[in-house]
Amino acid sequence: MAPIQNARVLFNSVPEKFPMPGGTTVYDTTQTIDLKTVPLDGGFLIKTLILSVDQYFRNRMRKPEKKSFVPPFELGASISGYGVGRVLRSENSAVEVGKYVYGPEMLHQEYAVMKELGPATVLEKHPDLPWTVYVGAAGMPGQTAFTGWKEYSDAKPGEVAFVTTGAGPVGSMVIQLAKQAGLKVIASAGSEEKVKFMQSLGADVVFNYKTMDTREVLAKEGPIDIFWDNVGGDILDAAIEHAAIKARFLECGSSSGYNNGHTPIKNMSMVSQKTLHIHGILVFQLLPKYYKEFYGTIPAKLASEEIKYNEEVTNGLDKVEDVILAVQKGTNRAKAVVVVAEE
Amino acid sequence: MAPIQNARVLFNSVPEKFPMPGGTTVYDTTQTIDLKTVPLDGGFLIKTLILSVDQYFRNRMRKPEKKSFVPPFELGASISGYGVGRVLRSENSAVEVGKYVYGPEMLHQEYAVMKELGPATVLEKHPDLPWTVYVGAAGMPGQTAFTGWKEYSDAKPGEVAFVTTGAGPVGSMVIQLAKQAGLKVIASAGSEEKVKFMQSLGADVVFNYKTMDTREVLAKEGPIDIFWDNVGGDILDAAIEHAAIKARFLECGSSSGYNNGHTPIKNMSMVSQKTLHIHGILVFQLLPKYYKEFYGTIPAKLASEEIKYNEEVTNGLDKVEDVILAVQKGTNRAKAVVVVAEE
Repeated sequence: MAPIQNARVLFNSVPEKFPMPGGTTVYDTTQTIDLKTVPLDGGFLIKTLILSVDQYFRNRMRKPEKKSFVPPFELGASISGYGVGRVLRSENSAVEVGKYVYGPEMLHQEYAVMKELGPATVLEKHPDLPWTVYVGAAGMPGQTAFTGWKEYSDAKPGEVAFVTTGAGPVGSMVIQLAKQAGLKVIASAGSEEKVKFMQSLGADVVFNYKTMDTREVLAKEGPIDIFWDNVGGDILDAAIEHAAIKARFLECGSSSGYNNGHTPIKNMSMVSQKTLHIHGILVFQLLPKYYKEFYGTIPAKLASEEIKYNEEVTNGLDKVEDVILAVQKGTNRAKAVVVVAEE
Repeated sequence: MAPIQNARVLFNSVPEKFPMPGGTTVYDTTQTIDLKTVPLDGGFLIKTLILSVDQYFRNRMRKPEKKSFVPPFELGASISGYGVGRVLRSENSAVEVGKYVYGPEMLHQEYAVMKELGPATVLEKHPDLPWTVYVGAAGMPGQTAFTGWKEYSDAKPGEVAFVTTGAGPVGSMVIQLAKQAGLKVIASAGSEEKVKFMQSLGADVVFNYKTMDTREVLAKEGPIDIFWDNVGGDILDAAIEHAAIKARFLECGSSSGYNNGHTPIKNMSMVSQKTLHIHGILVFQLLPKYYKEFYGTIPAKLASEEIKYNEEVTNGLDKVEDVILAVQKGTNRAKAVVVVAEE
């Protein structure tokens, strides 16, 4: 069998602001691969099926000397992220041909040889769910919501939760967990379509933060006992202002500042005055504790629609760069997933 | 017995910046009291012995419509705070004549009729300790350190703690609790005398934040696993910058901004990136859980000098206003206590 194209999305330059297709990254089709003969060296060959595009990519698009919670992308090499691949060949007894591998460091290329599983796992799919869900509500974003909420929300019926980016894969799960726990849920997003989706999830108060003033909403509907923060910046300041005594803040991200710098927070002195508790969340710290419970309950609830999800599927590895930009600009309508290949 | 003078410190006007003697407050000697005949209405009469002057007074010197974690002082009425008084007369069977009452709302006047104990308690003194300690290391500040540390530090031997205002009654206790827990302790204060005191408590790295750059010290001696924050503002930002993954921040106060407004915090996005845990602390939330343990262990350790303390005693109710200003400016050398009367 002759070598075939192995297209890749390469990290090309550190962006100043938004990551630009063809500049920050390039879609490269010059590499070829012989699927029959490419050496595995004890590893396995996968065909990439699904790739997730996430906000934290922006953080990885940095100079290598700058430290952060995730390693930087390597200039000139394929970017990577959560994804699912099917095993084509294997020299690893734990990874059988025909099985599916889900992991956080799947290369953005059509085919890849993986030396070892590392943090990846061999995953069984629920028969009524597509693989795309496994990088969304049944994957890292869903796990983030589930584990963060379980560990830090200390939710009590009748309390008030405020969820930002509530139409996203994390926020939408948080809204539903909060409603199931008996809370009043205030949820914000950046488009009317997203607002409608949040309403369909059962959120009590939904609003578009681009057309309504967050402080006004919180003044009327708060004070808030739980803040799920995906945005940071001025919205975080507003949440501190309108927090109840002993409120819990779950800091999941600060997307408002990824591309344009962060708005300084003016109200931190209220943390001691109101005895707030602010928790930074990283899913890989919490997942081991909740792994069995998550996979034992969430996929079935997603399949039965007891928990709803939304996703925006784009076809083709060549579209990854556009999706990355859309996610950074927030113009995607739901969890961004790229289908690289069908089976 | 003829009526005698009952001098008082009255709240006179809301300060713009620092609270000024004779302006923000006035020392008033016009009131008289007849100790034999003043009606008790089921309450008790106390002679004020000891009054604590604390930084949070500044917060109480505000317009009544502004909300906060402590009630505002009432304009035209005596200010109040932690103190100790001796019972002269009583119509309350729980408060016997000759006993001592310790409470958070003791009026700044020579004598006072209290209708009920409320949050105050009848306290037994350790024979080898003066009453002044009971508004410091054996009182609210010591309780703040003890309960906050117990509840939120999650301290592990070998970790690094950074304690601000380390020569104060809270910070000096925290330094010693941290050392006893096997941590490396970095401690800062605002004078050479305070720095020496912190060193005598066993702190490993001590510095004067007015003459040394906090960021340089933390870069060299950190990263920090525990931050005991009494100051907020830019020092809080520096601590976030130099925090280790999973660091715990104990937010006890933000004195840097009480009089001049707060420096906005630029690094809050690091809370999720580093999974920091930031806890606001109020002693009255935590004390019930630790009350017995605190009074059962700390006074004895203070008496035996296993735990050291420092205090700056001023004599005379007429000096309270000067002490308030000194505490706000940080020119006091140790926990500020006013002795109003000896027994």
